[in-house]
Amino acid sequence: MDLKYKRKIINDPVYGFIDIPYALVFEIIEHPYFQRLTRIKQLGLTHMVYPGAQHTRFQHSMGALHLMTSCISTLREKGINISQNEAEAVSIAILLHDIGHGPFSHALEQSLIEGISHEDLSGLFMEELNEEFSGKLELAIRIFNNQYDKKFLHQLVSGQLDMDRLDYLRRDSFFTGVSEGTIGSDRIIKMMNVVDDNLVIDVKGIYSLEKFLIARRLMYWQVYLHKTVQSAEFLLVKTLRRAIELAQKGVEVYGTPALKFFLYQNINQSSVFSKKTIWKTGGIMNNFALLDDSDIISSAKVWAEGKDKVLSLLSRRLINRELFKVELSDMPFPEKDIQQIKDWVVNEYNVEKEHAQYFVFSEMISNYAFDPTDHNVQVLNKDGSLHDIGKVSDILNTRVLSKKVRKYCLCYPKKYNHSL
Amino acid sequence: MDLKYKRKIINDPVYGFIDIPYALVFEIIEHPYFQRLTRIKQLGLTHMVYPGAQHTRFQHSMGALHLMTSCISTLREKGINISQNEAEAVSIAILLHDIGHGPFSHALEQSLIEGISHEDLSGLFMEELNEEFSGKLELAIRIFNNQYDKKFLHQLVSGQLDMDRLDYLRRDSFFTGVSEGTIGSDRIIKMMNVVDDNLVIDVKGIYSLEKFLIARRLMYWQVYLHKTVQSAEFLLVKTLRRAIELAQKGVEVYGTPALKFFLYQNINQSSVFSKKTIWKTGGIMNNFALLDDSDIISSAKVWAEGKDKVLSLLSRRLINRELFKVELSDMPFPEKDIQQIKDWVVNEYNVEKEHAQYFVFSEMISNYAFDPTDHNVQVLNKDGSLHDIGKVSDILNTRVLSKKVRKYCLCYPKKYNHSL
Amino acid sequence: MDLKYKRKIINDPVYGFIDIPYALVFEIIEHPYFQRLTRIKQLGLTHMVYPGAQHTRFQHSMGALHLMTSCISTLREKGINISQNEAEAVSIAILLHDIGHGPFSHALEQSLIEGISHEDLSGLFMEELNEEFSGKLELAIRIFNNQYDKKFLHQLVSGQLDMDRLDYLRRDSFFTGVSEGTIGSDRIIKMMNVVDDNLVIDVKGIYSLEKFLIARRLMYWQVYLHKTVQSAEFLLVKTLRRAIELAQKGVEVYGTPALKFFLYQNINQSSVFSKKTIWKTGGIMNNFALLDDSDIISSAKVWAEGKDKVLSLLSRRLINRELFKVELSDMPFPEKDIQQIKDWVVNEYNVEKEHAQYFVFSEMISNYAFDPTDHNVQVLNKDGSLHDIGKVSDILNTRVLSKKVRKYCLCYPKKYNHSL
Amino acid sequence: MDLKYKRKIINDPVYGFIDIPYALVFEIIEHPYFQRLTRIKQLGLTHMVYPGAQHTRFQHSMGALHLMTSCISTLREKGINISQNEAEAVSIAILLHDIGHGPFSHALEQSLIEGISHEDLSGLFMEELNEEFSGKLELAIRIFNNQYDKKFLHQLVSGQLDMDRLDYLRRDSFFTGVSEGTIGSDRIIKMMNVVDDNLVIDVKGIYSLEKFLIARRLMYWQVYLHKTVQSAEFLLVKTLRRAIELAQKGVEVYGTPALKFFLYQNINQSSVFSKKTIWKTGGIMNNFALLDDSDIISSAKVWAEGKDKVLSLLSRRLINRELFKVELSDMPFPEKDIQQIKDWVVNEYNVEKEHAQYFVFSEMISNYAFDPTDHNVQVLNKDGSLHDIGKVSDILNTRVLSKKVRKYCLCYPKKYNHSL
Repeated sequence: MDLKYKRKIINDPVYGFIDIPYALVFEIIEHPYFQRLTRIKQLGLTHMVYPGAQHTRFQHSMGALHLMTSCISTLREKGINISQNEAEAVSIAILLHDIGHGPFSHALEQSLIEGISHEDLSGLFMEELNEEFSGKLELAIRIFNNQYDKKFLHQLVSGQLDMDRLDYLRRDSFFTGVSEGTIGSDRIIKMMNVVDDNLVIDVKGIYSLEKFLIARRLMYWQVYLHKTVQSAEFLLVKTLRRAIELAQKGVEVYGTPALKFFLYQNINQSSVFSKKTIWKTGGIMNNFALLDDSDIISSAKVWAEGKDKVLSLLSRRLINRELFKVELSDMPFPEKDIQQIKDWVVNEYNVEKEHAQYFVFSEMISNYAFDPTDHNVQVLNKDGSLHDIGKVSDILNTRVLSKKVRKYCLCYPKKYNHSL
Repeated sequence: MDLKYKRKIINDPVYGFIDIPYALVFEIIEHPYFQRLTRIKQLGLTHMVYPGAQHTRFQHSMGALHLMTSCISTLREKGINISQNEAEAVSIAILLHDIGHGPFSHALEQSLIEGISHEDLSGLFMEELNEEFSGKLELAIRIFNNQYDKKFLHQLVSGQLDMDRLDYLRRDSFFTGVSEGTIGSDRIIKMMNVVDDNLVIDVKGIYSLEKFLIARRLMYWQVYLHKTVQSAEFLLVKTLRRAIELAQKGVEVYGTPALKFFLYQNINQSSVFSKKTIWKTGGIMNNFALLDDSDIISSAKVWAEGKDKVLSLLSRRLINRELFKVELSDMPFPEKDIQQIKDWVVNEYNVEKEHAQYFVFSEMISNYAFDPTDHNVQVLNKDGSLHDIGKVSDILNTRVLSKKVRKYCLCYPKKYNHSL
Repeated sequence: MDLKYKRKIINDPVYGFIDIPYALVFEIIEHPYFQRLTRIKQLGLTHMVYPGAQHTRFQHSMGALHLMTSCISTLREKGINISQNEAEAVSIAILLHDIGHGPFSHALEQSLIEGISHEDLSGLFMEELNEEFSGKLELAIRIFNNQYDKKFLHQLVSGQLDMDRLDYLRRDSFFTGVSEGTIGSDRIIKMMNVVDDNLVIDVKGIYSLEKFLIARRLMYWQVYLHKTVQSAEFLLVKTLRRAIELAQKGVEVYGTPALKFFLYQNINQSSVFSKKTIWKTGGIMNNFALLDDSDIISSAKVWAEGKDKVLSLLSRRLINRELFKVELSDMPFPEKDIQQIKDWVVNEYNVEKEHAQYFVFSEMISNYAFDPTDHNVQVLNKDGSLHDIGKVSDILNTRVLSKKVRKYCLCYPKKYNHSL
Repeated sequence: MDLKYKRKIINDPVYGFIDIPYALVFEIIEHPYFQRLTRIKQLGLTHMVYPGAQHTRFQHSMGALHLMTSCISTLREKGINISQNEAEAVSIAILLHDIGHGPFSHALEQSLIEGISHEDLSGLFMEELNEEFSGKLELAIRIFNNQYDKKFLHQLVSGQLDMDRLDYLRRDSFFTGVSEGTIGSDRIIKMMNVVDDNLVIDVKGIYSLEKFLIARRLMYWQVYLHKTVQSAEFLLVKTLRRAIELAQKGVEVYGTPALKFFLYQNINQSSVFSKKTIWKTGGIMNNFALLDDSDIISSAKVWAEGKDKVLSLLSRRLINRELFKVELSDMPFPEKDIQQIKDWVVNEYNVEKEHAQYFVFSEMISNYAFDPTDHNVQVLNKDGSLHDIGKVSDILNTRVLSKKVRKYCLCYPKKYNHSL
C-alpha cells in the first residue's frame, strides 16, 4: 500500500463519489474563501417553490470539478494531449468559476453590488488566491480568461457545453425534483472530442445534445424563471433596496457588520476598488468574503420587527413566505392598471405614495440564456468532417430554441382582488 | 371540473410529489412558526462531512406527512376504520412533531436551552397553534400525547415504525449520498396492519423490517455518529457555551436579537416559562420562534473577528471548517493524556489554563437509538396470530442490534502532533 | 383484518409496486392467453443493441394498468365522475390492448401474418375472453373500440396521451438504459383533466408535455429506429420469409408445431378466419395463442444447421448476432450500387442470383409515429378556456416534430468492403 | 483524433455505460458461445414471481466485466501493480466465469446434466476458446483456476468479494425491483486494497461490507429462495425428469434436436466426455452449446398438448403459470401427510400411483450460500494491521449470518384443500 496515497473522496448524492484529484485542489477547497460557498445557496430563493433546492454553490463547484475529471479522462483516451499541469489548471479554473457569487447568488447583483458581475468578483478572488498560493494558479487564470492557446480547455470551463452547465442542470434537476431537467451528462462527455483545439461532439452524440438543450429550456421555464421563484427574488431585491435607501439617507438600519458595510458604502465610487486595500480589513473584498446567506436572513428577521414600515412589511413577507401574486403577460402592463393597484396599496397599508412601488411593480423576464450562438456546437462526423449542429439536427435547425422569449410580470399583494 | 379543487402539490426529490391533503394542513404549513423550519437544517452540521446534507426540518416534516397519507390509504384498504377527522388529526400530528427544533437541530439542546427537550417545545408550539386555529388541533394534540384510544394513530407518529423514522432514514440517505441507508419505505407501509388497536406488520414484511433496522444502524455509524460530524457538533456546542459564559459574566457579546436573548437569559428559572408571557414580545417562545440557523452563523462570523480569544478561535474553526481531530476508543481516555494536550494548547494558543477544555475534550457517543424495546414490533402471521419480531427473525433475535455501543472520542487541534 | 382483502401486489422495477385493482383483472392476468405475453419481448430484437431490453409485453401491459389506476384516481380527485364499472372496464381495456402481439412484437406482422395488424388480433382475443368470462368484458370492449360515450376513457387507452405510450416510453428508456427517454409520467398524469368528455391537460403541464414529445422523438431515433436494431429486425423478417417461401414450395422445413402452422398455411385465404373454427384445435387463433419468441429462436437454431443454404446462412447470422452492415441516406440508393453488392454476394456465398435479395436490400424507415394529429392536445387554461397545445408552446408550434422524416437504409454483409 | 480508437461502449441500465476494454475481450463477446448467454435468463423462472427478472447471463457477465475494469483502476491508483496482460486476463476470466450455464441457469443441473456443475462446463468452454484464440486465454484460465501467484486476481473472480457477487446482487435487485438488495458496489470497490497478494478491505469500508452481507441474505430469502420461485423451479425440474424418464424408456418424446440429445443420451457414461469428440457434431458440448431457454419452452408447449398425461399436466402448469402451492416448515413433513395428498392426486387427476410424486413432493431448501468462511474478509486498519472482519464488526461477529438455515417445503396442487 502506498502511504503517499492521500486522495480524498467526497460523497455526493448526484454522482455517488467525487474524487479530489490534486493536492492543490484540496488546499483550495479548504480555504475560507471557498468554504464560504457552503453558505450560499445555488438557487437563491428557489427553495420557496421547490423545497429541495437547498443545495449550495460549494456542491455545484465540486460537481463541476467531478465532471471535469471525467472529461479529461475521456479526451485523453481519445488521444487528446492534456498534460498534468493543464489538467490541474483546468480543474482549478472550473472549481473557482463561481467563487465570486454573493448571498442568494443572483439577487445581490441587482441590489447590494449593483453593476458588478459575479464573474468580475471571481476574477478578484482568483488573483488573491494565486498570490496566497505563490503563483500556482497562474495557468488556471489564463485558461479561465481564455488566454491560453489550447482553446478547448477554456471551452470546458465556459462555453456551449461547459462543465458548469452540465453540472448545474443535472444538479438543479436532482434537488428540485423536476425530473424533466435530467440530462445524460455521462453520455455527452463520452461524446466529446477535440479538433483543431476546439471542443466538438461526435456525431453519435447529437440526440443527447438535443436533449440537453431542450432540458435546459425546460429548466428555465419550470425552475429558473418560474414566476413564483421570480416573485421571491424580486421581493428580496426590493427588501435590500429599501434597506440601502434608508442607509444612504443616514437612517440607522440594523445589519450584521459585513452587510452593514454594503448598505452604507457607495460601491460605485472607483476608490472602493483600489487594489491595495480591497482585501484589507474594512476593504470591500474583505467584507464581501464574509458575506453569505445568513447575513441577509438574520438581518431581515430584525427588519421585520423594526420601525420603518416599508422595510418591515417587505421583510415579514420574505421571512414568512408571503409572496406577491404574479401575473404574466406577453405585453407590458398598462401603467394605469399598475397605478390603480398602487393606490389601493397606499390606502390599505397606509404607506407613502412613493413607497407603493415596493409592493406593486412590473418586471420583464426573458430566457436570455438561449442566444443563438449557443447552438454553434460543431459535430464531428465519422468521415472526420465538421458540421454545425443546426445542419445535422432538425430540431436545432429551427429558430425556436434561440428565439428570445420575453414575458412581463406584474407583482402585487395577493389581498388585492385583482380585476383588470 | 370542480372549482373548489384546491389541493396543493409540492415537488420533492425523494418522493416526486407530495400532496397536501387538507385545507387546515395547508394553513398550518403557511404559518410563520412552520415556515421557520425552512431555515433549520435537518442534520445540523452534517453537511461539513456530507455536503449534500443541506435539507431542512421543513422538508422532513413534509415527507413524513406524505408517508402518513400513504399509510392511511393502505390501512383503509385493509379495512381499518380511520375517520376523516382522525386522518386529518394524525396528519397534523406528524407535520408538527418536529416544530420545536431549534437551530442546527440538536446542538442547541446542549447549550442555549439546556435541559429542555425539543419535544416539550413542540408541545408548546402545538398548543399555541391550537389556540390560533380555534381548537382545531385538539385531536392532533391528543394523538401526539398518546391520549387517544386508537393507540395505533399515536404509534404512526411516534413509535417503532413511525413515519418520522421512515422518512428521515430515507431522506438523510438520499441527501448525504450514503446509499446504504436506503429503506423500502413503500414496502414497509404496504405491510402495515392494525390488530387490537396496535400497529403490526404482516409477516411478508419481516425482511424489509430487518433491512430497515440494519439500515438505521448503518446510518447511525456512517452519518449520525460519524466522528467528524460529531466533532463539528461538539465545536458548535463549545462555541455557544463560551458565548453564554461570557454573557452570563456580563461581558458584551455580539448576537442577533433573538440569539442575544438566549445568551443573556437564564432559562432555568421557572419564571421564564410562565404561560402568560412566553408568546408575548420578549417572552421566551416568542424569541425561540424567531431563532434559526442564520442567527448562529451570522453571529459566529462576528465572534471570529471579536476580542475574546477563546470565542474567536472557536468561531473561526466553525466558519472555516477547521475541525478538531477525533480519536475513538472503546475505553475512556486517560486523564493525563488529555492534560498533556491541554498543556500544549495553553502554550500554543496562549490561552488561560481553564480555557483549554474548549479545545481539548473527551465525550462519549453511543448509539442510544437502539434500545431493545425498539424491536418489539408485532408480526401478524397468516393464521392471524401475533409474534414478537425477535421470534420470527434470526437476525433480530440476537442481542447484537440492541446492544448499546459506547465509544469515547477525544477531540483536539490537528496541529498537535499526537503520539500517546 | 378483513379476510376478503385479497388485493395482489406485484414488484416492478419501474414503479416499485403495481396493485391489481379488481378480482376480474386478476383472473384475466392469470389466463393462459395473457400469460403468453410473458414470453414475448416488448422490443423484439432491440436487445441485440441494448442488452437490457429483455422486458416483455406482460410487463408493459402491467405498467400501463398501473398508470391507469393512478390516472383514474387523479381524475376522480378533480371531480370527474368515473363509476366502478367504468374504472374496471378501462383497466381491462388497457391491460389487453397489446394481447394480439406475436413473437418479437412487430417483426411477425411483416412475415408470418402479413396483412393482419396486432390490433385486429387483440380484438379477436378480447371477444374470446369476453365469452369465457360470460360477457364481463363487454364495456371494456366498447371502450377499446371507442363505442362508449365517455370518449375520454377511450383516449386513455388509445390517444395522444394514452397510458400505453406513457408506460412504454418510460419502460423502454429504463430497460435500454437510454436515460434521455425518461418522462415525468407522474407529472403528466397529475396534470390530466376532462372537459366535455375529452382528455385535456392543465396548463401547468405543458412543459412536461413538451418533454414527453421530445423524449418520444429521441427514443425513436436512439432506440426504435436505431439502424442496427432495424438491421436485426430486417434479418429476422428475411429469415422468416425464406422459411415461408420454402414451405409454400412444399419443401420440408423444421418448425415447432405452432410455427409450422403459419409457415405452411396461407393465411390470406378468407376461410382461415372463419369465426367458428379459429379457436378450435388447428384453428388459426388456437395456433397463434401458442406462438411466442421461443418458437422462432428454437427453430432458427435448427435452420442454421439445415440444408437450405439461404435459410442456414440467415439463421446463423440471427443466432450469432452477425448483423448486416447498414448505411443510411436521405435518398434512395441507386439500383446499380445495390446490384453490384448482390453480384458480390452471389459469388462470395455461392447462392442463386434470385436469393441475393435476402442478403442485400434497401428499406425505408420513417418516424411515422409523429403525425401532426398527435399534437392536437387541448390545454386547459386557468380561466377555463381551451387551446390547442401548438398555440401555447413555441416548441410544438413548429412543424419540426410533426415532419415525417424518411431515411433509406441499405443492408449487406459486413465482409463486403463497401466503396461506392 | 486517434483513428485506431475503437473502444466499444454498451448501454447498461444498471451502470449507465460499459466499456469493453480490450480488443480480445470484444472478440470473445462476439463469439457464438458467448452470444448464447443472451438467450439464458440469469434467474431462471424467477420472473414468474418478479416479472422484471428477464435479464440474462450475458448482461450479468458484462456487468461483472465492468466492475472488474473499475476495480483494476482503483487498485492501480493505490499503487498495486497489475500489468496490462494481467488486467486483460482477469477481465476475460470474469467475463467467462458463467459461460457454462445451461437453460434457466440452475434447473438444468438437477435434471438434464445431473452431476455436472456449470463450473466444470465453464472450464471446458474456456479451454475450447483458448484453442480457437491460439492460446491467448492461457493466463485467464490460470487465474480462473487459482493457479497464478497473484492470488488476489483469482479472488476478484471467485472469492468472498468477487465481481460476480457484486454484480449479481445489484443487478438482480435492480431487475426484480427488490430495492432492499441494493448494495454500494462503487463504495466497496473503492475500499478494496491488496496486502501480501490478498484482497483486503480498508477499515472505512466495513459498514458497506456489513450492508453487502445483509443485502445478500435478504436477496436469498426474498428472491433466490422465495418459496414461489422455488416452486416454479421444482416444477421445471419435475417436467424435465418426466421427459427424460419417458425417453430413457424408449418412448418417443418431442424435443428440439439439442434438447432431444440430452433427453436420450445417458450423460453419466464416461465415454460421453471423451475430449476428442465433445465439440464435434453430435458431441455433448457441441449440443450443449446449442441449448438455451427457448428449447425448453418451445418443447414444453408441445408436451402440454402431448399424449403422456403426467408430462402434459406438468408442462401445462409450467407454461400457464399454474404453480404448486408451497408450505414451509422448519421440520420435515410427515410422510403420511404427504401420502394423503398423493392419494388425492391419484384420484383427482387419474394418474398412476407411482406418478403422484411428480405432483406432491417435499424438498429442503437452505441458504447454503452463507457458510462461515465467507466472512473471513481481512480488514486493513489505518496502522497497517489486518484483522478478521468478525473482530471488527459486531454484526458479523455473531454466528447469525453464517448459520445454515434449513427449511422444508411441501408442494402440491392448489386445488387440494389442505387441512393437516
